Amino acid sequence: MIDREARLARLQALGESVLQDLKQETFPVVEIPDRGTGNIVFDENSNQYILGTSRVERTAGNYRHIRSFTQLMWVASYAKSLIENSRTSSLRDLYYSSEAFGVEFSDQAESDRVIADLESLVRLSREEMGIYPEENSSVYGEVTMRYSVPGYEGREVDLTISPDGLPIGPALMSSDPVESNAEIILAVESGGMFSRLIETRSWERFNALLVHLGGQAPRSTRRLLRRIHDSLGLPVYIFTDGDPWGMHIAKVITSGSANSAHISDLTVHDAEWIGVTADDIEDYQLPTEPMTDYDLKRLDELANDVRYRDKPSQSQIRRFKELKLKAEQQAFSRHGMDYVVETYLPDKLE
Amino acid sequence: MIDREARLARLQALGESVLQDLKQETFPVVEIPDRGTGNIVFDENSNQYILGTSRVERTAGNYRHIRSFTQLMWVASYAKSLIENSRTSSLRDLYYSSEAFGVEFSDQAESDRVIADLESLVRLSREEMGIYPEENSSVYGEVTMRYSVPGYEGREVDLTISPDGLPIGPALMSSDPVESNAEIILAVESGGMFSRLIETRSWERFNALLVHLGGQAPRSTRRLLRRIHDSLGLPVYIFTDGDPWGMHIAKVITSGSANSAHISDLTVHDAEWIGVTADDIEDYQLPTEPMTDYDLKRLDELANDVRYRDKPSQSQIRRFKELKLKAEQQAFSRHGMDYVVETYLPDKLE
Repeated sequence: MIDREARLARLQALGESVLQDLKQETFPVVEIPDRGTGNIVFDENSNQYILGTSRVERTAGNYRHIRSFTQLMWVASYAKSLIENSRTSSLRDLYYSSEAFGVEFSDQAESDRVIADLESLVRLSREEMGIYPEENSSVYGEVTMRYSVPGYEGREVDLTISPDGLPIGPALMSSDPVESNAEIILAVESGGMFSRLIETRSWERFNALLVHLGGQAPRSTRRLLRRIHDSLGLPVYIFTDGDPWGMHIAKVITSGSANSAHISDLTVHDAEWIGVTADDIEDYQLPTEPMTDYDLKRLDELANDVRYRDKPSQSQIRRFKELKLKAEQQAFSRHGMDYVVETYLPDKLE
Repeated sequence: MIDREARLARLQALGESVLQDLKQETFPVVEIPDRGTGNIVFDENSNQYILGTSRVERTAGNYRHIRSFTQLMWVASYAKSLIENSRTSSLRDLYYSSEAFGVEFSDQAESDRVIADLESLVRLSREEMGIYPEENSSVYGEVTMRYSVPGYEGREVDLTISPDGLPIGPALMSSDPVESNAEIILAVESGGMFSRLIETRSWERFNALLVHLGGQAPRSTRRLLRRIHDSLGLPVYIFTDGDPWGMHIAKVITSGSANSAHISDLTVHDAEWIGVTADDIEDYQLPTEPMTDYDLKRLDELANDVRYRDKPSQSQIRRFKELKLKAEQQAFSRHGMDYVVETYLPDKLE
């Protein structure tokens, strides 16, 4: 995360450009990177979605732009005051706060969109501006982080301090890795698996920092994965349910999503999906459920998704389509409580 | 939580009674407290739901009982091995593990039901047997807890250690309060409000231990509330959205639910719902949304619910019905970011 002064400077620069326009008695104009589907391109080099060069103009001189222009300015000023006061706000709080200022959003979806506009305009993620969704995932392992939030500046926390894991909230997301005994990061989909890996001391056995994703990983979790991966050089392995949804949890970590194409520090390109693969279902004789039409339709979508063009992805999709079966992470319990720790994960990791 | 040996002893006693029957060549029989609606009674004294005296027999001598009898025995042995090995299992893991033993459940709902049977039979909650749902809520404040899970025995944790809060998982749930600077417990519905209260240092201002409920509080959270309330003597205040669902979050904490009528240590009878009340909506001029038919139907249900027979509850329901409006906790943000901390909560708490 860039430092506080730099973040404030970007918002201030936006305000000053608008002010200058006003002083010169011209209508203020901002040019926002176009986040429409037509401008989202898959970058072969970085292997992720990024925005193209197209921009959209928003001008106070166009009657139809005034509402969104005002909303954007208000969100920017709200974000500035969050940073200045070292505060955070949920997306929902921001939506409700607008009423105090006579700024209107028809619903939270609209304020969420304007926040994304601001993100791409000033090249700061909402989290860098103190704005968070409510969901959380957790982390556990032998890594020491240094907090920077008020009241905790410089304080270090060992990520094994709480045997239930630590939530990846605003404070942890903005903290910096200091040192580590871990050699890999193992990110898992379900909370049950996360707990199992903690209490069997698998983090010790595999020298792993454990991350609970909880379905599609929140952005703050993806950013923390990226930061720890980059600064400590730890490879990332992802363990999800064996179905198109699990595959996609992993894919969003490696190749990003269209929704966050304007944010660049969320992906870990070389993260590896270890399973549950279609082959695992057969190799480990896992209990399965038949795929629903919805699952199969999702597989078709993935087959045509540019992020799945690589051979291993295509082959997994094909295998799942042949099998028409899916299996959860928990399915390994069929072979005994610790089978996943004693057999499956060593097969995959060692 | 009763100690490990006592928990094991209860499961062992069950096993021994079955074994004795078998040795005497009679069909083993267990008598389970009846958890059907007909046997759930509202206890005026304790002001909560409890089970009546009716019991149901499950006997291996009845062909139709064999399946559920076997399931019950297997869950008991699985629970015993969890306690013996100081392990936990998610409800889902338990369901999948059954396959390893050739025990059949048609779905997780069935294994969840059998777990509840075992709970009422041996008078241990599933958490005391190491069985947890996946959901979590969190806690933050100046209370010190002492862990008892393996690897952490006797280690103390200050609940302000993580500025994002600590999850109330298996380890924290089974830990014991040691000391406290807090004078009240303030339980809030939303994660956004929880974060706001942490970062504004409201826990200091109100001398409050903050608890994030996250909708209907998981049982482990209700149990922790009860434990800290009882052993440190802290009164509990509950702050939820202003709608029937928020009211009911508070009511389940004070008066329990039919589903957990067989568990007695989950309620805090004198916990107080501070709002958002129907009166608050008017008094604080909160932004509102109209109640849906679904909300209004829920209000009717609450009006006829025995737990809402007290005058204040009936009057709140009436007021909501007249207003036909609801408001979220976040609605206070209309009056500025810190209004809820600077004005509303002091009004209610001080």
